[in-house]
Amino acid sequence: MDDLSSIALDHLIADLGDIPVVTEPKVVRRRSRDFFWYSPILNEQLDGKSADLIVAPRNEQDVIRTAAACARHRVPLTVRAGGTGNYGQAVPLKGGVLLDMMALSDIEWIRPGQLRAGAGARMNDIDARTQAEGFELRMHPSTKRTATIGGFVAGGSGGIGSVTYGGLRERGNILAARVITLEEEPRVIELRGDAAQKVNRAYGTTGIITAVEMPLAPAWKWIDVVVVFDDFMEAAAFGYEAALSDGIVKKVLAPVTWPLPLYFGALRPHCPDGKSILIAMIAEPSLESFKALLGDRGSITLETPTDDSPGQVPLYEYTWNHTTLQVLKSDRTVTYLQCLYPHDQLLEKIAEMRELFPDEVLQHLEFIRFGGRVTCSGLPVVRFTNADRLNEIMSLHEQRGVYIANPHVFTVEDGSRYKRADADQLGFKHEVDPHGLLNPGKMRSFVSSRP
Amino acid sequence: MDDLSSIALDHLIADLGDIPVVTEPKVVRRRSRDFFWYSPILNEQLDGKSADLIVAPRNEQDVIRTAAACARHRVPLTVRAGGTGNYGQAVPLKGGVLLDMMALSDIEWIRPGQLRAGAGARMNDIDARTQAEGFELRMHPSTKRTATIGGFVAGGSGGIGSVTYGGLRERGNILAARVITLEEEPRVIELRGDAAQKVNRAYGTTGIITAVEMPLAPAWKWIDVVVVFDDFMEAAAFGYEAALSDGIVKKVLAPVTWPLPLYFGALRPHCPDGKSILIAMIAEPSLESFKALLGDRGSITLETPTDDSPGQVPLYEYTWNHTTLQVLKSDRTVTYLQCLYPHDQLLEKIAEMRELFPDEVLQHLEFIRFGGRVTCSGLPVVRFTNADRLNEIMSLHEQRGVYIANPHVFTVEDGSRYKRADADQLGFKHEVDPHGLLNPGKMRSFVSSRP
Repeated sequence: MDDLSSIALDHLIADLGDIPVVTEPKVVRRRSRDFFWYSPILNEQLDGKSADLIVAPRNEQDVIRTAAACARHRVPLTVRAGGTGNYGQAVPLKGGVLLDMMALSDIEWIRPGQLRAGAGARMNDIDARTQAEGFELRMHPSTKRTATIGGFVAGGSGGIGSVTYGGLRERGNILAARVITLEEEPRVIELRGDAAQKVNRAYGTTGIITAVEMPLAPAWKWIDVVVVFDDFMEAAAFGYEAALSDGIVKKVLAPVTWPLPLYFGALRPHCPDGKSILIAMIAEPSLESFKALLGDRGSITLETPTDDSPGQVPLYEYTWNHTTLQVLKSDRTVTYLQCLYPHDQLLEKIAEMRELFPDEVLQHLEFIRFGGRVTCSGLPVVRFTNADRLNEIMSLHEQRGVYIANPHVFTVEDGSRYKRADADQLGFKHEVDPHGLLNPGKMRSFVSSRP
Repeated sequence: MDDLSSIALDHLIADLGDIPVVTEPKVVRRRSRDFFWYSPILNEQLDGKSADLIVAPRNEQDVIRTAAACARHRVPLTVRAGGTGNYGQAVPLKGGVLLDMMALSDIEWIRPGQLRAGAGARMNDIDARTQAEGFELRMHPSTKRTATIGGFVAGGSGGIGSVTYGGLRERGNILAARVITLEEEPRVIELRGDAAQKVNRAYGTTGIITAVEMPLAPAWKWIDVVVVFDDFMEAAAFGYEAALSDGIVKKVLAPVTWPLPLYFGALRPHCPDGKSILIAMIAEPSLESFKALLGDRGSITLETPTDDSPGQVPLYEYTWNHTTLQVLKSDRTVTYLQCLYPHDQLLEKIAEMRELFPDEVLQHLEFIRFGGRVTCSGLPVVRFTNADRLNEIMSLHEQRGVYIANPHVFTVEDGSRYKRADADQLGFKHEVDPHGLLNPGKMRSFVSSRP
């Protein structure tokens, strides 16, 4: 609870009027968590951190009223929606209000190639609605079925679809964001185009996002494909060729080294012992070309339309950070890294890292576009011994030209590096959060001039 | 007429039965030409070359009957459709039959992301039909309004749309082709996937294409945009950034150096004196992001929905080889080159070529993807002095690492180089054209074993 007086909280609650509030400590503590526990280091640092109460605005007016009350009483406010982050993005470090955005889920409009939705709209619901009109989100995290669009913009960086469109930081992948400032008289600011990058992956420190405008991609009929290879580097080499094939429409290309498929539950029967696999989502009209490219280099053990309806497990739930989750389900001794490989030495560096940590770092790659070039994001599963060794592994990557976005830190500055938006987020924070109440502690370099 | 006896031709015509035939020499001579006259060298070599007669099959059965008759009487057959080629692709070197494919224009079916059409279907008609269902061809030449899909596959290589999908040679950009062999008993062969590359840019030497299956792209609302820059290299640098921006959906990015816009007719008012321009086609939902990327580096002088209906001049008719045509309309002393810049030294090499030939080679680039990398195809307008100097200019490009596809030669082997399909076209020709009657003289390395 830090230095928040219960008097301040009482005043705050009084000012909120009929806006729904939850104070039941057990519920508040549970909802103050996200998936930071993938990291043993964050797990130590963030365990037990909790808001004092949950406020659940029903609409933007409620958000404005809550922001005003928080400013007036100097109560911290941390925004939360699906809570699917991995770095404690939505974990309040200094108590206060946890702002539950789930009710702001309206889809304002859908136009050809564009959508505007409330920050709390679930990405799965957006896709269901837009797919009926021939469109879908360009990209989504592997947590699409629980994540919200506002949370993805505020805490994510890319995912399924980034093999074609790059990450959220690429120009054109966020069209606009509407934010509320944390002031006694909150302002509503529409950030269009490049300006929207001010809230991209800022963990809600630079304004409360109430709505976003996102570009849409054509909605293809996607086919989930598992290809099996004798050797991981063959899977990586084929994935690279497929990623470079502009004539083949794809949404995911993810080579996964053996023994990770051992942990793949429902997918395990499609993963022969000792073999590495490539997980792919291919547009149906491109499937024949994909197979022609493959030739007899690998064998396809699964080919089925992507189905993420309830009860189904789409293939994308074995990619990105879901790979880590699949392993964590039965082995809690592992953690993970986030790497960006250099596009001009891609396969060499993958092989080099593999030789450096043959059993300790189990590779799993995601082909992406980054600045217009095909490369890989690596999310290897790491056998954890201690923090020093984990830091050493990261250093060894960086010394050899593989960039690291450290997923074992909770601040915007320390964690993002290459995922960082190209915008003056710190400057903007001074404008919208003069008292430093928005998710305090997460933007390390910020010092309020009006605390 | 070479060694074709009029007796052979008489027998041929008799065998054709009721298939429409044109023998009127003036008409036959006129239709035996294409746009090879862009090249003063080809103009000398090909001027006067003509078929002996035009045969106009009404359907595939007529094609088969014509092929059988040509094989029986050893009469050469050269396929022609829109006749928009620039290298004499459809010019018969040894007389015989000019096979007019325009009547095979049926669209067999349209599925999400795929189409199957007769070789003679005009690309503009295909787009009109598929756009109604939300799709369009992934790419088309600047001659889209007269070119056919079969002719594009047989003689083209890429064009408007290749900035996203690469050229026809990229896997997945031709799904299948149906071809008729030139034998006494013609066979019908369905070439699927990689096998379809056997007819890609083979100028009709490797079988008579009667139908093709092509992938479709989503049909965006395209906006024609002209951006003006003080300096050509600024236009090129901005074009490069836009080409690398995977979040911005585009169909053309073409920097054009001053003074080429002097010749741009209806577009001239949008091209200030002394300024270089960038011609772009941007999907409407990406226009705002495109402008954000531009900032104040250049100024937009035209922004209007792409309109290629009759009477309109879409912006793409100032790009690719239409740029050359715009200049040739008022200055017949010029010709052009086709260059491929190395993707890893792109802007440096463009600047280097510019300094090497400041007034003689007037640059005009098309951003494309090639093997998954962003680079430029250059189609500079060249002030022509003589063949030796033209060859020297090409050599100087190649010596400095800029690849040349010589557009001043008429054989498949000499002309294509980097546009060449990755398939055993020569081996396939032996299978389908044992007598060497298909467009004879165009596949230089072929020697018939059964003349």
